[in-house]
Amino acid sequence: MLQKIQHLGYAVEDIEATASFYRESFGAEPSAPESVEEQGILATMFEVGESTIELVQPTRPDSPVGKFLAKRGEGFHHVAFAVEDLDAALAELKSRGVELIDAEPRIGAGGVRMAFVHPKSAFGVLTELVESPRD
Amino acid sequence: MLQKIQHLGYAVEDIEATASFYRESFGAEPSAPESVEEQGILATMFEVGESTIELVQPTRPDSPVGKFLAKRGEGFHHVAFAVEDLDAALAELKSRGVELIDAEPRIGAGGVRMAFVHPKSAFGVLTELVESPRD
Repeated sequence: MLQKIQHLGYAVEDIEATASFYRESFGAEPSAPESVEEQGILATMFEVGESTIELVQPTRPDSPVGKFLAKRGEGFHHVAFAVEDLDAALAELKSRGVELIDAEPRIGAGGVRMAFVHPKSAFGVLTELVESPRD
Repeated sequence: MLQKIQHLGYAVEDIEATASFYRESFGAEPSAPESVEEQGILATMFEVGESTIELVQPTRPDSPVGKFLAKRGEGFHHVAFAVEDLDAALAELKSRGVELIDAEPRIGAGGVRMAFVHPKSAFGVLTELVESPRD
């Protein structure tokens, strides 16, 4: 059911410094940082194989990523797996009593359908499911 | 330089319960848990696309993963990126003053050459570099 690691989200204090590190040390090509005002973040991303690394810097301390940074510090924030059928995946998880942050799919960056599984139910890992675009 | 996400390492309290979750909820096929006595861990893994998820349960509280669990709780532990030339990658990182846990490559599971970058230098993410087998 899990097709690939679609992306990893890293929470960072300074998106430019972090992007420079990956650019200069590893030859990565991060996109220009974009503001997502609704989520209170600046985000940039770069490809690694079939996956993407997303760097996220909060623009407000009371945003979810701002609160995460205050509590946990910089580092890994979440993993997103690509699934073919998000509705079927969520129905399966609900039938097993898995706690979901998003009981129904919502629309994420780039217009994709996505939902978060609660880390309590995923052994401490904030886990996102992203529906792959259909052909 | 980063060819793909080779694996993600998750630190868990109960490897059987976590493996069952991924098997039953997502159709993953975790390998039988193996003990790596030198590192004080039980480990199992399953494939997701071109990457692998490794579940690691400490067998001793004083092992590195045991200490991690005591301090941070269950969840994401490290990411490993595949690189073609580990010696060149480490030389590049050293020239930039990046702090390394392993200044020289060592041999990891399956006989691969690998080294860890210190999370202090990688913005909070414990980052492993694994050399891809050459043709």
